[in-house]
Amino acid sequence: MRVTLNLALPLAEAASLASSILIEQTVETPPDVAHAYPFVRERFAGEILSLVPADPGCHLTLQLPDTGCTDAAQCLNVLFGNVSLHEKVSLLDFEPTAAWTSLLPGPRHGIAGLRAAVGIQDRPLLCAAIKPVGMNVDEIASVCARIADGGIDFIKDDHYFSDAPFAPFEARVRACQRAVDDAGQRLGRRIVYVPNLTGAPAQLERQADLAQQLGVGAVMAAPMLVGLPAYRALADRLDIPLFAHPSFAGATRIAPEALFGKLFRLFGADAVIFANYGGRFSYDRDTCIAMARTMRAPLAGVRPALPVPAGGMTVERAGELVDAFGLDAMLLIGGSLLQAADLTARAGTLRESVETAARSLLS
Amino acid sequence: MRVTLNLALPLAEAASLASSILIEQTVETPPDVAHAYPFVRERFAGEILSLVPADPGCHLTLQLPDTGCTDAAQCLNVLFGNVSLHEKVSLLDFEPTAAWTSLLPGPRHGIAGLRAAVGIQDRPLLCAAIKPVGMNVDEIASVCARIADGGIDFIKDDHYFSDAPFAPFEARVRACQRAVDDAGQRLGRRIVYVPNLTGAPAQLERQADLAQQLGVGAVMAAPMLVGLPAYRALADRLDIPLFAHPSFAGATRIAPEALFGKLFRLFGADAVIFANYGGRFSYDRDTCIAMARTMRAPLAGVRPALPVPAGGMTVERAGELVDAFGLDAMLLIGGSLLQAADLTARAGTLRESVETAARSLLS
Repeated sequence: MRVTLNLALPLAEAASLASSILIEQTVETPPDVAHAYPFVRERFAGEILSLVPADPGCHLTLQLPDTGCTDAAQCLNVLFGNVSLHEKVSLLDFEPTAAWTSLLPGPRHGIAGLRAAVGIQDRPLLCAAIKPVGMNVDEIASVCARIADGGIDFIKDDHYFSDAPFAPFEARVRACQRAVDDAGQRLGRRIVYVPNLTGAPAQLERQADLAQQLGVGAVMAAPMLVGLPAYRALADRLDIPLFAHPSFAGATRIAPEALFGKLFRLFGADAVIFANYGGRFSYDRDTCIAMARTMRAPLAGVRPALPVPAGGMTVERAGELVDAFGLDAMLLIGGSLLQAADLTARAGTLRESVETAARSLLS
Repeated sequence: MRVTLNLALPLAEAASLASSILIEQTVETPPDVAHAYPFVRERFAGEILSLVPADPGCHLTLQLPDTGCTDAAQCLNVLFGNVSLHEKVSLLDFEPTAAWTSLLPGPRHGIAGLRAAVGIQDRPLLCAAIKPVGMNVDEIASVCARIADGGIDFIKDDHYFSDAPFAPFEARVRACQRAVDDAGQRLGRRIVYVPNLTGAPAQLERQADLAQQLGVGAVMAAPMLVGLPAYRALADRLDIPLFAHPSFAGATRIAPEALFGKLFRLFGADAVIFANYGGRFSYDRDTCIAMARTMRAPLAGVRPALPVPAGGMTVERAGELVDAFGLDAMLLIGGSLLQAADLTARAGTLRESVETAARSLLS
């Protein structure tokens, strides 16, 4: 798989970062560890294809092996997983391989299916949204009916519409579908109502099935809100076209304390792994300590989550890291452990160094 | 719900943006449309609490109504949905309300549960990762066993480990669990193996159930790869602690052409809605046209997806937008339609303006 990244760095610095990015997005271990396994060497190595100056920064094009693209989430992981966390790196473009497109075959219906749904071939299609959220089912159906009578092809829910007590999904879909069916009869062509599907995977499935049973012609979901793999599962489940809403697609303009410290915790993480300072990534010490503090701070009666700083853990740093994160932390030992000739001995030494540091903190 | 955003703007410009951000994250329609509905006015209005200069930019604190927080995805939508797409806006912090924490009650096990799993109370816990991806099951189990013998508390999979043909999930988990059980017996305490769960929701469920049947003491998944609502569903399903891996958590350092034009399409979107130029958001015309072109361009035999530019659609702009996006597009008519006294008439006029523009393009 060919992937082009932008590095917001001058060429000389970009050149020294390029090989560590390649390792990050392939074997994520020092080369001597990876090369010990012939299959890893042959099928997971990857290659730097080019590094050219651009404005701003540089463009780095990598050939990434797709042997690891074994499910929808792993496709994202290989494409732009850990390296997405590097503040100087952004993803510009990529060329999916056959392994990708066998898992992610794209639209089930596409342009032809959408045009067929409304029988319009010779102009751009039209869509309008029913708003605002907070209307009850009768109010929603009334807006839908009036837009439908104007001959707009697709009438979609606002992306804030959910299975809400003040406008339940089934009643809403039933009323809006009736409205577009009535308008379609009057106009002599099909108007398509597009309900918004939202929630956890089981809710999405229930809503998708219900919408199809009620004769709906297309549905919408926000891939970044529901998660890309859940969105793909929805596409596979449906026999009707699927719209993508862009909400939350800028999700990582989120401060690390809020994303890792609060959101991951609220979504149920017991232990939250994050890139530690002094490791391969760029959070500074203060940010890391603030993330850890946020994970454990009182929060609306929610249990604390355990901070798991990852990377840079050595015997020499045990005291420093125990001081920085305290006892309620889990120290994740990085790839350096795997370079040891005797893994067991190195692991034991690291554990003893932390036991010593903890005793000294407690005394 | 109290939400603090950073606006990378001087105070005067931030002040003029603040009220449109409040509308975006609440009713997403002009105030006169929203105020026509008493329930909307009372339960969805929200409020600007403060706007203060910071370095850089300003901090805007909003009180956002949580009436719309009816499922896990909608919690994200209300928190930082559309506004995440604004290039000058980032999320700094938030205070969840009771509506949030009833849907997102945080860790099921938390720090106490993780400590109990290994019986260690008086020092930071330790974790190591099994790497590299590409090893077979015997090689994986051997690395796991050697680390376990060193007395590391938690031994987790690399986040690239999946249900891969070269190291299938069940065989891998069985072998690693045996390795940590054996080490635990020798050491006289519990060592926990933490397999990585990955894939679409159904795969996550199968892997979670299998891991628990095989006696595993904790599991890991990457919330941003699998999607936050799918991650929460996993937490609800499991009786053992759940780790969060940070991969893909910088996901929106992705060029809009790659994210909307390729990724959403590959994940199965038939119609891809994006914020159009001249609307409320900040993509420029060239970027919008490039996004649309990417959605329809040849791509590894994958069907084209229909570009759906959203916002700024008026009778006057019909010709310009048809020129810009061509016939294979769907024009999404924004909130201005809903301000019309006669929705049906306005909808009809908009449709006719596009029909005229399309005929003139074709002739």
